[in-house]
Amino acid sequence: MTDGRLITSLTNETVKAVRALHMRKEREATGLFLAEGLKFIGEALDQGRTPKTLLVGMEARPHPLLDRAKAETWQAGGEVVTVTHPILEKISRRENPQTVLGVFEQAFTPLAGIRPEAAPCWIALEQVRDPGNLGTIIRTVDSAGCGGVILIGDCVDPFSVEAVRATMGSVFAVAIARATTADFLAWRETWPGSVVGTRLDATSGYREAAYAPPTLILMGNEQAGLTDALAAACDVNVKIPMRGRADSLNLAVATGVMAYAVTDALAR
Amino acid sequence: MTDGRLITSLTNETVKAVRALHMRKEREATGLFLAEGLKFIGEALDQGRTPKTLLVGMEARPHPLLDRAKAETWQAGGEVVTVTHPILEKISRRENPQTVLGVFEQAFTPLAGIRPEAAPCWIALEQVRDPGNLGTIIRTVDSAGCGGVILIGDCVDPFSVEAVRATMGSVFAVAIARATTADFLAWRETWPGSVVGTRLDATSGYREAAYAPPTLILMGNEQAGLTDALAAACDVNVKIPMRGRADSLNLAVATGVMAYAVTDALAR
Repeated sequence: MTDGRLITSLTNETVKAVRALHMRKEREATGLFLAEGLKFIGEALDQGRTPKTLLVGMEARPHPLLDRAKAETWQAGGEVVTVTHPILEKISRRENPQTVLGVFEQAFTPLAGIRPEAAPCWIALEQVRDPGNLGTIIRTVDSAGCGGVILIGDCVDPFSVEAVRATMGSVFAVAIARATTADFLAWRETWPGSVVGTRLDATSGYREAAYAPPTLILMGNEQAGLTDALAAACDVNVKIPMRGRADSLNLAVATGVMAYAVTDALAR
Repeated sequence: MTDGRLITSLTNETVKAVRALHMRKEREATGLFLAEGLKFIGEALDQGRTPKTLLVGMEARPHPLLDRAKAETWQAGGEVVTVTHPILEKISRRENPQTVLGVFEQAFTPLAGIRPEAAPCWIALEQVRDPGNLGTIIRTVDSAGCGGVILIGDCVDPFSVEAVRATMGSVFAVAIARATTADFLAWRETWPGSVVGTRLDATSGYREAAYAPPTLILMGNEQAGLTDALAAACDVNVKIPMRGRADSLNLAVATGVMAYAVTDALAR
Protein backbone atom coordinates (compact mmCIF):
# COMPACT_ATOMS: atom_id res chain seq x y z
CA MET A 1 0.00 0.00 0.00
CA THR A 2 1.47 3.37 -0.93
CA ASP A 3 0.62 6.70 0.62
CA GLY A 4 -0.50 8.18 -2.66
CA ARG A 5 1.22 10.94 -4.55
CA LEU A 6 2.73 13.90 -2.76
CA ILE A 7 1.41 17.35 -3.62
CA THR A 8 3.48 20.37 -2.65
CA SER A 9 2.14 23.06 -4.97
CA LEU A 10 -0.73 25.36 -4.10
CA THR A 11 -1.55 25.59 -7.80
CA ASN A 12 -1.98 21.83 -8.18
CA GLU A 13 -5.33 21.07 -9.85
CA THR A 14 -6.54 18.79 -7.03
CA VAL A 15 -5.73 21.43 -4.42
CA LYS A 16 -7.48 24.12 -6.45
CA ALA A 17 -10.56 21.93 -6.85
CA VAL A 18 -10.73 21.20 -3.10
CA ARG A 19 -10.24 24.85 -2.17
CA ALA A 20 -13.05 25.80 -4.53
CA LEU A 21 -15.45 23.80 -2.37
CA HIS A 22 -15.67 26.84 -0.08
CA MET A 23 -17.88 28.33 -2.82
CA ARG A 24 -21.53 27.29 -3.04
CA LYS A 25 -21.45 27.51 -6.83
CA GLU A 26 -18.63 24.98 -7.00
CA ARG A 27 -20.32 22.67 -4.51
CA GLU A 28 -23.47 22.75 -6.59
CA ALA A 29 -21.60 22.19 -9.84
CA THR A 30 -19.64 19.21 -8.50
CA GLY A 31 -22.04 17.79 -5.92
CA LEU A 32 -19.08 17.49 -3.55
CA PHE A 33 -18.22 18.87 -0.10
CA LEU A 34 -15.28 19.03 2.28
CA ALA A 35 -15.14 17.33 5.67
CA GLU A 36 -12.18 18.05 7.95
CA GLY A 37 -10.65 15.82 10.60
CA LEU A 38 -10.33 12.13 11.32
CA LYS A 39 -13.47 12.15 13.48
CA PHE A 40 -15.52 13.21 10.46
CA ILE A 41 -13.86 10.64 8.22
CA GLY A 42 -14.56 7.91 10.77
CA GLU A 43 -18.23 8.91 11.00
CA ALA A 44 -18.44 8.79 7.21
CA LEU A 45 -16.84 5.34 6.94
CA ASP A 46 -19.15 3.97 9.63
CA GLN A 47 -22.06 5.11 7.46
CA GLY A 48 -20.59 3.44 4.38
CA ARG A 49 -19.47 6.73 2.85
CA THR A 50 -15.95 6.89 1.44
CA PRO A 51 -14.06 9.99 0.30
CA LYS A 52 -13.62 10.64 -3.41
CA THR A 53 -10.34 12.23 -2.36
CA LEU A 54 -8.58 11.73 0.94
CA LEU A 55 -5.97 14.39 1.70
CA VAL A 56 -3.42 13.49 4.36
CA GLY A 57 -1.01 16.04 5.80
CA MET A 58 2.68 15.05 5.82
CA GLU A 59 2.61 15.52 9.60
CA ALA A 60 -0.45 13.30 10.17
CA ARG A 61 0.27 10.78 12.91
CA PRO A 62 -0.23 7.08 12.27
CA HIS A 63 -3.69 5.93 13.37
CA PRO A 64 -5.63 2.73 12.68
CA LEU A 65 -8.58 4.83 11.51
CA LEU A 66 -6.36 6.61 9.01
CA ASP A 67 -5.15 3.27 7.65
CA ARG A 68 -8.77 2.17 7.33
CA ALA A 69 -9.69 5.42 5.60
CA LYS A 70 -6.90 4.99 3.05
CA ALA A 71 -7.78 1.36 2.39
CA GLU A 72 -11.49 2.04 1.97
CA THR A 73 -10.84 5.07 -0.22
CA TRP A 74 -8.68 3.02 -2.59
CA GLN A 75 -11.12 0.15 -2.54
CA ALA A 76 -13.96 2.46 -3.57
CA GLY A 77 -11.89 3.91 -6.42
CA GLY A 78 -11.05 7.17 -4.66
CA GLU A 79 -7.71 8.92 -4.52
CA VAL A 80 -5.36 9.35 -1.56
CA VAL A 81 -2.90 12.23 -1.70
CA THR A 82 -0.29 13.50 0.72
CA VAL A 83 -0.11 17.29 1.13
CA THR A 84 2.08 19.83 2.90
CA HIS A 85 1.06 21.92 5.89
CA PRO A 86 0.70 25.14 3.85
CA ILE A 87 -1.75 23.33 1.58
CA LEU A 88 -3.81 22.18 4.57
CA GLU A 89 -3.88 25.80 5.81
CA LYS A 90 -4.97 27.12 2.44
CA ILE A 91 -7.70 24.52 2.05
CA SER A 92 -9.07 24.96 5.56
CA ARG A 93 -8.46 28.74 5.71
CA ARG A 94 -7.27 28.12 9.26
CA GLU A 95 -3.98 28.46 11.07
CA ASN A 96 -4.33 25.12 12.84
CA PRO A 97 -5.85 22.92 10.18
CA GLN A 98 -6.95 19.33 10.63
CA THR A 99 -4.34 16.98 9.16
CA VAL A 100 -6.81 14.68 7.40
CA LEU A 101 -9.43 16.00 4.98
CA GLY A 102 -11.98 14.20 2.89
CA VAL A 103 -13.92 15.23 -0.20
CA PHE A 104 -17.30 13.50 -0.21
CA GLU A 105 -20.34 13.36 -2.43
CA GLN A 106 -23.26 15.35 -1.05
CA ALA A 107 -26.22 13.17 -0.16
CA PHE A 108 -29.64 14.77 -0.13
CA THR A 109 -32.50 12.41 0.72
CA PRO A 110 -35.45 13.03 -1.61
CA LEU A 111 -38.67 13.89 0.25
CA ALA A 112 -40.22 10.71 -1.12
CA GLY A 113 -37.31 8.74 0.36
CA ILE A 114 -38.00 9.81 3.95
CA ARG A 115 -39.59 7.08 6.05
CA PRO A 116 -41.33 8.99 8.87
CA GLU A 117 -41.63 5.87 11.06
CA ALA A 118 -37.84 5.42 11.06
CA ALA A 119 -37.57 7.97 13.92
CA PRO A 120 -39.86 9.43 16.59
CA CYS A 121 -39.15 13.00 15.54
CA TRP A 122 -38.05 15.00 12.50
CA ILE A 123 -37.14 18.67 12.14
CA ALA A 124 -38.13 20.97 9.27
CA LEU A 125 -36.41 24.35 8.95
CA GLU A 126 -37.79 27.25 6.95
CA GLN A 127 -35.31 29.64 5.32
CA VAL A 128 -32.54 29.06 7.85
CA ARG A 129 -29.85 31.66 7.19
CA ASP A 130 -26.87 30.95 9.42
CA PRO A 131 -24.55 28.05 8.50
CA GLY A 132 -23.39 27.66 12.11
CA ASN A 133 -27.00 27.38 13.26
CA LEU A 134 -27.78 24.79 10.59
CA GLY A 135 -24.71 22.69 11.41
CA THR A 136 -25.45 22.88 15.13
CA ILE A 137 -29.05 21.85 14.46
CA ILE A 138 -27.92 18.81 12.44
CA ARG A 139 -25.71 17.82 15.41
CA THR A 140 -28.68 18.30 17.77
CA VAL A 141 -31.04 16.32 15.54
CA ASP A 142 -28.57 13.43 15.68
CA SER A 143 -28.06 13.77 19.48
CA ALA A 144 -31.78 13.74 20.21
CA GLY A 145 -32.36 10.70 18.02
CA CYS A 146 -34.36 12.53 15.38
CA GLY A 147 -34.38 11.16 11.85
CA GLY A 148 -33.19 14.21 9.97
CA VAL A 149 -33.83 17.73 8.74
CA ILE A 150 -36.01 18.98 5.91
CA LEU A 151 -34.85 22.35 4.54
CA ILE A 152 -37.80 24.39 3.24
CA GLY A 153 -37.40 27.21 0.75
CA ASP A 154 -34.26 29.30 0.43
CA CYS A 155 -31.94 27.87 3.10
CA VAL A 156 -28.21 28.12 3.67
CA ASP A 157 -26.23 25.17 2.23
CA PRO A 158 -25.86 22.29 4.74
CA PHE A 159 -22.68 21.26 2.90
CA SER A 160 -20.85 24.57 3.32
CA VAL A 161 -17.53 24.19 5.15
CA GLU A 162 -18.83 26.18 8.12
CA ALA A 163 -22.09 24.23 8.43
CA VAL A 164 -20.31 20.88 8.11
CA ARG A 165 -17.82 21.86 10.84
CA ALA A 166 -20.65 22.71 13.23
CA THR A 167 -22.24 19.29 12.69
CA MET A 168 -19.20 17.65 14.35
CA GLY A 169 -19.69 14.66 12.05
CA SER A 170 -23.47 14.34 12.31
CA VAL A 171 -23.75 15.49 8.67
CA PHE A 172 -23.18 11.81 7.85
CA ALA A 173 -25.57 10.46 10.49
CA VAL A 174 -28.95 12.00 9.68
CA ALA A 175 -31.10 12.43 6.59
CA ILE A 176 -30.94 15.85 4.94
CA ALA A 177 -33.73 16.77 2.56
CA ARG A 178 -34.78 19.98 0.84
CA ALA A 179 -38.03 21.12 -0.68
CA THR A 180 -39.84 24.12 -2.05
CA THR A 181 -42.62 25.39 0.18
CA ALA A 182 -45.21 24.02 -2.27
CA ASP A 183 -43.60 20.57 -2.38
CA PHE A 184 -43.29 20.51 1.40
CA LEU A 185 -46.96 21.44 1.88
CA ALA A 186 -48.07 18.67 -0.46
CA TRP A 187 -45.78 16.11 1.22
CA ARG A 188 -46.89 17.21 4.69
CA GLU A 189 -50.41 15.95 3.86
CA THR A 190 -49.05 12.41 3.94
CA TRP A 191 -47.36 12.79 7.36
CA PRO A 192 -48.67 10.06 9.69
CA GLY A 193 -48.05 11.80 13.06
CA SER A 194 -48.23 15.32 14.55
CA VAL A 195 -46.98 18.34 12.66
CA VAL A 196 -45.99 21.02 15.17
CA GLY A 197 -45.04 24.60 14.41
CA THR A 198 -43.02 26.77 16.78
CA ARG A 199 -44.15 30.38 16.92
CA LEU A 200 -43.64 33.14 19.47
CA ASP A 201 -47.29 34.16 19.07
CA ALA A 202 -48.66 30.65 19.68
CA THR A 203 -50.94 30.19 22.67
CA SER A 204 -50.13 26.54 23.46
CA GLY A 205 -47.13 25.80 25.67
CA TYR A 206 -44.59 23.45 24.12
CA ARG A 207 -44.75 21.11 27.14
CA GLU A 208 -48.53 20.83 27.11
CA ALA A 209 -49.10 19.83 23.47
CA ALA A 210 -49.81 16.19 22.60
CA TYR A 211 -47.15 14.84 20.27
CA ALA A 212 -48.20 11.82 18.20
CA PRO A 213 -45.21 9.95 16.78
CA PRO A 214 -43.62 10.48 14.39
CA THR A 215 -43.69 14.19 15.22
CA LEU A 216 -42.54 16.70 12.63
CA ILE A 217 -41.36 19.98 14.23
CA LEU A 218 -41.29 23.13 12.08
CA MET A 219 -38.87 25.90 13.00
CA GLY A 220 -38.88 29.29 11.23
CA ASN A 221 -36.20 31.66 10.04
CA GLU A 222 -33.85 33.35 12.55
CA GLN A 223 -35.37 36.82 12.08
CA ALA A 224 -38.91 36.31 10.85
CA GLY A 225 -39.93 33.05 12.51
CA LEU A 226 -42.28 30.56 10.88
CA THR A 227 -44.35 32.05 8.03
CA ASP A 228 -48.13 32.07 8.20
CA ALA A 229 -48.33 29.62 5.29
CA LEU A 230 -46.35 26.97 7.15
CA ALA A 231 -47.86 27.70 10.57
CA ALA A 232 -51.32 27.19 9.03
CA ALA A 233 -50.28 23.76 7.76
CA CYS A 234 -49.43 22.55 11.29
CA ASP A 235 -51.74 20.51 13.55
CA VAL A 236 -50.74 22.80 16.40
CA ASN A 237 -48.41 25.73 16.97
CA VAL A 238 -46.57 25.93 20.26
CA LYS A 239 -44.46 28.47 22.10
CA ILE A 240 -41.36 28.12 24.25
CA PRO A 241 -41.99 30.53 27.15
CA MET A 242 -39.91 33.72 27.24
CA ARG A 243 -39.59 34.38 30.97
CA GLY A 244 -37.15 37.28 30.98
CA ARG A 245 -36.51 40.31 28.82
CA ALA A 246 -35.20 38.50 25.73
CA ASP A 247 -37.81 38.25 22.98
CA SER A 248 -36.50 35.05 21.41
CA LEU A 249 -33.99 32.23 21.65
CA ASN A 250 -31.18 31.52 19.22
CA LEU A 251 -32.61 29.19 16.53
CA ALA A 252 -30.28 26.28 17.31
CA VAL A 253 -31.05 26.54 21.03
CA ALA A 254 -34.80 26.71 20.38
CA THR A 255 -34.57 23.68 18.10
CA GLY A 256 -32.65 21.79 20.80
CA VAL A 257 -35.25 22.62 23.46
CA MET A 258 -38.06 21.49 21.14
CA ALA A 259 -36.30 18.35 19.90
CA TYR A 260 -35.62 17.13 23.45
CA ALA A 261 -39.08 18.07 24.69
CA VAL A 262 -40.66 15.95 21.96
CA THR A 263 -38.25 13.00 22.03
CA ASP A 264 -38.35 12.90 25.85
CA ALA A 265 -42.16 12.93 25.80
CA LEU A 266 -42.27 10.16 23.19
CA ALA A 267 -39.64 8.08 25.03
CA ARG A 268 -41.72 7.94 28.21
CA MET B 1 -30.40 69.80 22.10
CA THR B 2 -27.55 69.39 19.61
CA ASP B 3 -26.47 66.20 17.91
CA GLY B 4 -22.99 66.32 19.38
CA ARG B 5 -19.80 66.92 17.47
CA LEU B 6 -19.23 65.34 14.07
CA ILE B 7 -16.26 63.00 13.68
CA THR B 8 -15.06 62.21 10.18
CA SER B 9 -11.49 61.02 10.80
CA LEU B 10 -10.55 57.41 11.44
CA THR B 11 -7.60 58.65 13.48
CA ASN B 12 -9.77 60.63 15.88
CA GLU B 13 -8.94 59.69 19.48
CA THR B 14 -12.51 58.71 20.38
CA VAL B 15 -12.75 56.47 17.33
CA LYS B 16 -9.40 54.86 18.13
CA ALA B 17 -10.47 54.24 21.72
CA VAL B 18 -13.75 52.62 20.66
CA ARG B 19 -12.04 50.45 18.03
CA ALA B 20 -9.58 49.28 20.66
CA LEU B 21 -12.48 47.69 22.58
CA HIS B 22 -12.16 44.70 20.24
CA MET B 23 -9.05 43.84 22.29
CA ARG B 24 -9.48 42.11 25.65
CA LYS B 25 -6.50 43.97 27.08
CA GLU B 26 -8.11 47.31 26.31
CA ARG B 27 -11.47 46.21 27.71
CA GLU B 28 -9.77 45.14 30.92
CA ALA B 29 -7.76 48.35 31.16
CA THR B 30 -10.77 50.60 30.62
CA GLY B 31 -13.59 48.50 32.08
CA LEU B 32 -15.64 49.40 29.02
CA PHE B 33 -17.34 47.45 26.22
CA LEU B 34 -19.08 48.08 22.92
CA ALA B 35 -22.76 47.37 22.26
CA GLU B 36 -24.08 47.75 18.72
CA GLY B 37 -27.57 48.64 17.59
CA LEU B 38 -30.57 50.53 18.90
CA LYS B 39 -32.10 47.35 20.35
CA PHE B 40 -29.07 46.95 22.64
CA ILE B 41 -29.13 50.61 23.62
CA GLY B 42 -32.83 50.35 24.47
CA GLU B 43 -32.23 47.28 26.63
CA ALA B 44 -29.47 49.13 28.44
CA LEU B 45 -31.59 52.23 29.09
CA ASP B 46 -34.44 50.08 30.40
CA GLN B 47 -31.98 48.65 32.92
CA GLY B 48 -30.82 52.12 33.96
CA ARG B 49 -27.54 51.83 32.09
CA THR B 50 -26.47 54.77 29.94
CA PRO B 51 -23.61 54.90 27.43
CA LYS B 52 -20.41 56.72 28.33
CA THR B 53 -20.26 57.44 24.60
CA LEU B 54 -23.11 57.20 22.14
CA LEU B 55 -21.99 57.06 18.51
CA VAL B 56 -24.65 57.88 15.94
CA GLY B 57 -24.11 57.34 12.23
CA MET B 58 -24.89 60.28 9.94
CA GLU B 59 -27.41 58.05 8.16
CA ALA B 60 -29.22 56.98 11.37
CA ARG B 61 -32.96 57.42 10.95
CA PRO B 62 -34.93 59.47 13.48
CA HIS B 63 -36.38 57.26 16.20
CA PRO B 64 -37.96 58.11 19.56
CA LEU B 65 -35.60 55.60 21.22
CA LEU B 66 -32.61 57.36 19.68
CA ASP B 67 -33.84 60.70 21.04
CA ARG B 68 -34.23 59.10 24.45
CA ALA B 69 -30.74 57.59 24.24
CA LYS B 70 -29.20 60.95 23.42
CA ALA B 71 -31.09 62.72 26.20
CA GLU B 72 -30.21 60.12 28.84
CA THR B 73 -26.57 59.98 27.73
CA TRP B 74 -26.22 63.75 28.12
CA GLN B 75 -28.09 63.72 31.40
CA ALA B 76 -25.69 61.10 32.80
CA GLY B 77 -22.65 63.11 31.70
CA GLY B 78 -21.84 60.97 28.67
CA GLU B 79 -20.88 62.12 25.21
CA VAL B 80 -22.89 61.90 21.98
CA VAL B 81 -20.96 62.02 18.72
CA THR B 82 -22.00 61.78 15.10
CA VAL B 83 -19.82 59.62 12.87
CA THR B 84 -19.53 58.76 9.19
CA HIS B 85 -20.36 55.41 7.64
CA PRO B 86 -16.69 54.42 7.13
CA ILE B 87 -16.12 54.97 10.85
CA LEU B 88 -19.06 52.71 11.74
CA GLU B 89 -17.61 50.05 9.42
CA LYS B 90 -14.16 50.32 11.00
CA ILE B 91 -15.50 50.14 14.53
CA SER B 92 -17.82 47.20 13.87
CA ARG B 93 -15.47 45.44 11.42
CA ARG B 94 -18.54 44.77 9.33
CA GLU B 95 -19.78 45.81 5.93
CA ASN B 96 -23.29 46.52 7.16
CA PRO B 97 -22.70 48.11 10.53
CA GLN B 98 -25.38 49.13 12.99
CA THR B 99 -25.91 52.88 12.85
CA VAL B 100 -26.04 53.45 16.61
CA LEU B 101 -23.29 52.23 18.91
CA GLY B 102 -22.83 52.60 22.64
CA VAL B 103 -19.79 52.33 24.87
CA PHE B 104 -20.83 51.08 28.30
CA GLU B 105 -19.17 50.28 31.59
CA GLN B 106 -18.80 46.55 32.21
CA ALA B 107 -20.83 45.35 35.15
CA PHE B 108 -19.71 42.20 36.91
CA THR B 109 -21.81 41.18 39.89
CA PRO B 110 -19.58 40.08 42.77
CA LEU B 111 -20.33 36.53 43.97
CA ALA B 112 -21.38 37.95 47.32
CA GLY B 113 -23.84 40.22 45.53
CA ILE B 114 -25.80 37.35 43.99
CA ARG B 115 -29.16 36.74 45.67
CA PRO B 116 -29.96 33.10 44.84
CA GLU B 117 -33.64 33.51 45.73
CA ALA B 118 -34.04 36.25 43.12
CA ALA B 119 -34.50 33.56 40.43
CA PRO B 120 -35.49 29.88 40.27
CA CYS B 121 -32.37 28.92 38.37
CA TRP B 122 -28.80 30.10 37.80
CA ILE B 123 -26.12 28.86 35.39
CA ALA B 124 -22.42 28.40 36.17
CA LEU B 125 -19.99 27.82 33.28
CA GLU B 126 -16.54 26.33 33.67
CA GLN B 127 -13.81 27.48 31.28
CA VAL B 128 -16.16 28.34 28.45
CA ARG B 129 -14.03 29.01 25.38
CA ASP B 130 -16.25 30.22 22.57
CA PRO B 131 -17.54 33.82 22.68
CA GLY B 132 -20.53 32.97 20.49
CA ASN B 133 -21.48 30.16 22.86
CA LEU B 134 -21.18 32.43 25.90
CA GLY B 135 -23.26 35.19 24.33
CA THR B 136 -25.90 32.71 23.21
CA ILE B 137 -25.98 31.24 26.73
CA ILE B 138 -26.50 34.69 28.26
CA ARG B 139 -29.45 35.19 25.86
CA THR B 140 -30.81 31.76 26.85
CA VAL B 141 -30.39 32.45 30.58
CA ASP B 142 -32.47 35.59 30.13
CA SER B 143 -35.10 33.80 27.98
CA ALA B 144 -35.57 30.99 30.48
CA GLY B 145 -35.92 33.41 33.39
CA CYS B 146 -32.67 32.42 35.08
CA GLY B 147 -30.92 34.96 37.27
CA GLY B 148 -27.55 35.02 35.60
CA VAL B 149 -24.28 33.29 34.82
CA ILE B 150 -21.26 32.61 37.00
CA LEU B 151 -18.04 32.19 34.99
CA ILE B 152 -15.65 29.80 36.72
CA GLY B 153 -11.93 29.76 36.02
CA ASP B 154 -10.40 30.84 32.73
CA CYS B 155 -13.39 31.80 30.59
CA VAL B 156 -13.77 33.84 27.44
CA ASP B 157 -14.70 37.49 28.06
CA PRO B 158 -18.49 38.05 28.18
CA PHE B 159 -17.88 41.67 27.09
CA SER B 160 -16.06 40.82 23.86
CA VAL B 161 -17.77 42.28 20.80
CA GLU B 162 -18.65 38.80 19.50
CA ALA B 163 -20.08 37.58 22.82
CA VAL B 164 -22.10 40.77 23.32
CA ARG B 165 -23.58 40.48 19.80
CA ALA B 166 -24.73 36.92 20.49
CA THR B 167 -26.55 38.05 23.66
CA MET B 168 -28.96 40.10 21.50
CA GLY B 169 -29.18 42.61 24.36
CA SER B 170 -29.48 40.17 27.26
CA VAL B 171 -25.99 41.21 28.41
CA PHE B 172 -27.82 44.04 30.19
CA ALA B 173 -30.62 41.86 31.57
CA VAL B 174 -28.90 39.19 33.68
CA ALA B 175 -26.25 39.10 36.37
CA ILE B 176 -22.75 38.17 35.19
CA ALA B 177 -20.28 37.03 37.84
CA ARG B 178 -16.83 35.44 37.71
CA ALA B 179 -14.84 33.43 40.19
CA THR B 180 -11.79 31.27 40.60
CA THR B 181 -12.55 27.60 41.12
CA ALA B 182 -11.56 27.90 44.78
CA ASP B 183 -13.79 30.92 45.37
CA PHE B 184 -16.66 29.24 43.58
CA LEU B 185 -16.33 26.06 45.65
CA ALA B 186 -16.38 28.05 48.90
CA TRP B 187 -19.37 30.12 47.76
CA ARG B 188 -21.24 27.02 46.56
CA GLU B 189 -21.36 25.81 50.21
CA THR B 190 -23.80 28.62 50.96
CA TRP B 191 -26.14 27.78 48.06
CA PRO B 192 -29.65 27.22 49.47
CA GLY B 193 -31.05 24.96 46.68
CA SER B 194 -29.85 22.15 44.41
CA VAL B 195 -26.45 22.28 42.72
CA VAL B 196 -26.60 20.17 39.55
CA GLY B 197 -23.69 19.20 37.33
CA THR B 198 -24.08 18.13 33.71
CA ARG B 199 -21.78 15.31 32.65
CA LEU B 200 -21.90 12.85 29.79
CA ASP B 201 -20.84 10.06 32.17
CA ALA B 202 -23.56 10.78 34.73
CA THR B 203 -26.06 8.02 35.43
CA SER B 204 -29.08 10.16 36.35
CA GLY B 205 -31.29 11.42 33.55
CA TYR B 206 -31.74 15.19 33.50
CA ARG B 207 -35.54 14.84 33.53
CA GLU B 208 -35.62 12.52 36.54
CA ALA B 209 -33.54 14.56 38.99
CA ALA B 210 -35.28 16.53 41.75
CA TYR B 211 -34.49 20.21 41.44
CA ALA B 212 -34.89 22.26 44.62
CA PRO B 213 -35.14 25.98 43.96
CA PRO B 214 -33.04 27.95 43.50
CA THR B 215 -31.21 25.43 41.28
CA LEU B 216 -27.64 26.12 40.23
CA ILE B 217 -26.70 24.29 37.00
CA LEU B 218 -23.02 23.68 36.25
CA MET B 219 -21.93 23.28 32.63
CA GLY B 220 -18.38 22.30 31.65
CA ASN B 221 -15.98 23.35 28.94
CA GLU B 222 -16.81 22.69 25.25
CA GLN B 223 -14.15 20.01 24.82
CA ALA B 224 -13.46 18.58 28.26
CA GLY B 225 -16.84 18.86 29.99
CA LEU B 226 -17.18 19.52 33.70
CA THR B 227 -14.01 18.79 35.69
CA ASP B 228 -14.02 16.19 38.47
CA ALA B 229 -13.45 18.89 41.09
CA LEU B 230 -16.64 20.72 40.17
CA ALA B 231 -18.68 17.58 39.50
CA ALA B 232 -17.78 16.36 43.00
CA ALA B 233 -19.13 19.59 44.49
CA CYS B 234 -22.59 19.01 42.98
CA ASP B 235 -25.56 17.48 44.79
CA VAL B 236 -26.23 15.43 41.69
CA ASN B 237 -24.79 15.05 38.22
CA VAL B 238 -27.17 14.48 35.33
CA LYS B 239 -26.93 13.55 31.69
CA ILE B 240 -28.85 14.68 28.63
CA PRO B 241 -29.42 11.46 26.65
CA MET B 242 -27.44 11.02 23.44
CA ARG B 243 -29.81 8.97 21.30
CA GLY B 244 -27.96 8.98 17.98
CA ARG B 245 -24.35 8.82 16.85
CA ALA B 246 -23.25 12.26 18.11
CA ASP B 247 -21.30 12.07 21.34
CA SER B 248 -22.25 15.51 22.66
CA LEU B 249 -24.37 18.60 22.11
CA ASN B 250 -23.10 22.08 21.39
CA LEU B 251 -22.58 23.79 24.78
CA ALA B 252 -25.15 26.54 24.19
CA VAL B 253 -27.75 23.99 23.06
CA ALA B 254 -27.05 21.74 26.06
CA THR B 255 -27.36 24.74 28.39
CA GLY B 256 -30.67 25.67 26.79
CA VAL B 257 -32.05 22.15 27.18
CA MET B 258 -30.98 22.10 30.85
CA ALA B 259 -32.17 25.62 31.65
CA TYR B 260 -35.65 24.94 30.27
CA ALA B 261 -35.88 21.49 31.87
CA VAL B 262 -35.19 23.02 35.29
CA THR B 263 -37.25 26.20 34.94
CA ASP B 264 -40.18 24.25 33.46
CA ALA B 265 -40.02 21.74 36.32
CA LEU B 266 -39.89 24.52 38.92
CA ALA B 267 -42.71 26.47 37.24
CA ARG B 268 -45.12 23.53 37.52
